[in-house]
Amino acid sequence: MTAQEKLAGRISQGYHICVGLDTDINKIPEHLNNRKNPVLDFNNEIIRATADSAAAYKINFAFYEKDGLKGIENLLATIDMIPDDILIIGDAKRGDIGNTSKMYAEAVFNTFGCDAVTLHPYMGIDSVAPFIDFSDKISFVLVLTSNKSAADFEKLSLADGEKLFVEVLNKSNSWNVNNNVGIVFGATNPEELAVYSHHFNEMPVLLPGVGAQQGDLSKVLKIFRDQKKENFIINVSRGLIYAGKGEDFAEFSRNELNKYNNIVKSA
Amino acid sequence: MTAQEKLAGRISQGYHICVGLDTDINKIPEHLNNRKNPVLDFNNEIIRATADSAAAYKINFAFYEKDGLKGIENLLATIDMIPDDILIIGDAKRGDIGNTSKMYAEAVFNTFGCDAVTLHPYMGIDSVAPFIDFSDKISFVLVLTSNKSAADFEKLSLADGEKLFVEVLNKSNSWNVNNNVGIVFGATNPEELAVYSHHFNEMPVLLPGVGAQQGDLSKVLKIFRDQKKENFIINVSRGLIYAGKGEDFAEFSRNELNKYNNIVKSA
Repeated sequence: MTAQEKLAGRISQGYHICVGLDTDINKIPEHLNNRKNPVLDFNNEIIRATADSAAAYKINFAFYEKDGLKGIENLLATIDMIPDDILIIGDAKRGDIGNTSKMYAEAVFNTFGCDAVTLHPYMGIDSVAPFIDFSDKISFVLVLTSNKSAADFEKLSLADGEKLFVEVLNKSNSWNVNNNVGIVFGATNPEELAVYSHHFNEMPVLLPGVGAQQGDLSKVLKIFRDQKKENFIINVSRGLIYAGKGEDFAEFSRNELNKYNNIVKSA
Repeated sequence: MTAQEKLAGRISQGYHICVGLDTDINKIPEHLNNRKNPVLDFNNEIIRATADSAAAYKINFAFYEKDGLKGIENLLATIDMIPDDILIIGDAKRGDIGNTSKMYAEAVFNTFGCDAVTLHPYMGIDSVAPFIDFSDKISFVLVLTSNKSAADFEKLSLADGEKLFVEVLNKSNSWNVNNNVGIVFGATNPEELAVYSHHFNEMPVLLPGVGAQQGDLSKVLKIFRDQKKENFIINVSRGLIYAGKGEDFAEFSRNELNKYNNIVKSA
């Protein structure tokens, strides 16, 4: 299945919540600490409890790289655990000169087996093209991020009157000739989302910032509903995977996901 | 030794060439292919042949990540081979929201043991701060990159008349309170370098783009010499490590490095 088919399949069932596997050994339930591989056992239980009603999984590479070889083993094993029909986003935020981006693309898509990736746009098309060359994968370009200092550069006004992130949005649209470019747009920016979502066209949108970062879910949903746009997924990481602390933690995560799914459905 | 001490130590000896270990198994000398670990043997010979007269080593993470677990093993082993008094730059081009950048910083500096890192500025100070928090490491922020499509965003004019990369340069200066912020400035942009090098202040500069990317070494050197600035390193990767094809390949790389060093000295 292509990345596009996986995403469309879940969205057509009404699922729009992406489960973020930012697994931190210091935050997982205590009883797992005496397991041989606490992080992997945690991920396994979360995935089993959420796989039928998640829109996608987003794997934050940083949390695995931090643990070196063991972390990379866990990254590979976690990706292996995810059912084949669900989109796996490698949240790696890569981007480099062409010959290096080519290596990163091979790493994320072939070596690690992700269906999608997140990319820094700063270096321009050379840095994005080697990812886009994988036509059955989705490359999500950072347009407007969820963090406060998105204001430092992303929101700067250009000489032509547009903000930098709008230029990145426009360029992303122009790069989307093979229907495999998506964008990242922080849910913490509902005003910008209301205006610029009219220019997302066919690109799928990954919205981080709901949950721990306090993006407003209802505002985000209203914007997409008003335009009858379905091609969006909302990522929740910490707010979902750490919902429970006891042996039944995965049940709590499942309930939390269902709560989000119900909010999406009733919107 | 701190990263700053390592860099200053080599520069004070007149060394300004950084050896880029972008090791690609498809480009290394053929006779290594029947070794147990061709990449590691290649890196070992290159490092032994260049360690006394290199300013730094830059390790391009992409080339190792592509090979998964084996690649990460090689990354760790390569870093282990480099003498303690030489700066190791983890060319990882990272950058994410605060809690994620914290994990990436721990990965690059603690888990992998690099002295320095390269960073995407797009997401602003939140994404850079967790790296800068390591005061004895150097965080090189991408200001103006060596690739052609640096024009896509980096060279866009802002409403205040400055280019985006100049705003990144100015912000990088303001972040450099602990003398641990550096910048990346592509050697393929000599005109911009001539103008903006006057605003680099105390920040060390990493200049990629010489060699395979055809940046003009003599122009770059003249700019720094005219200002009596010493705090720069020029990266050469492909043009140096693949200088030889036979069993004596490392000797060719050493000669190539010496050639570059002589050009620097005579400038």
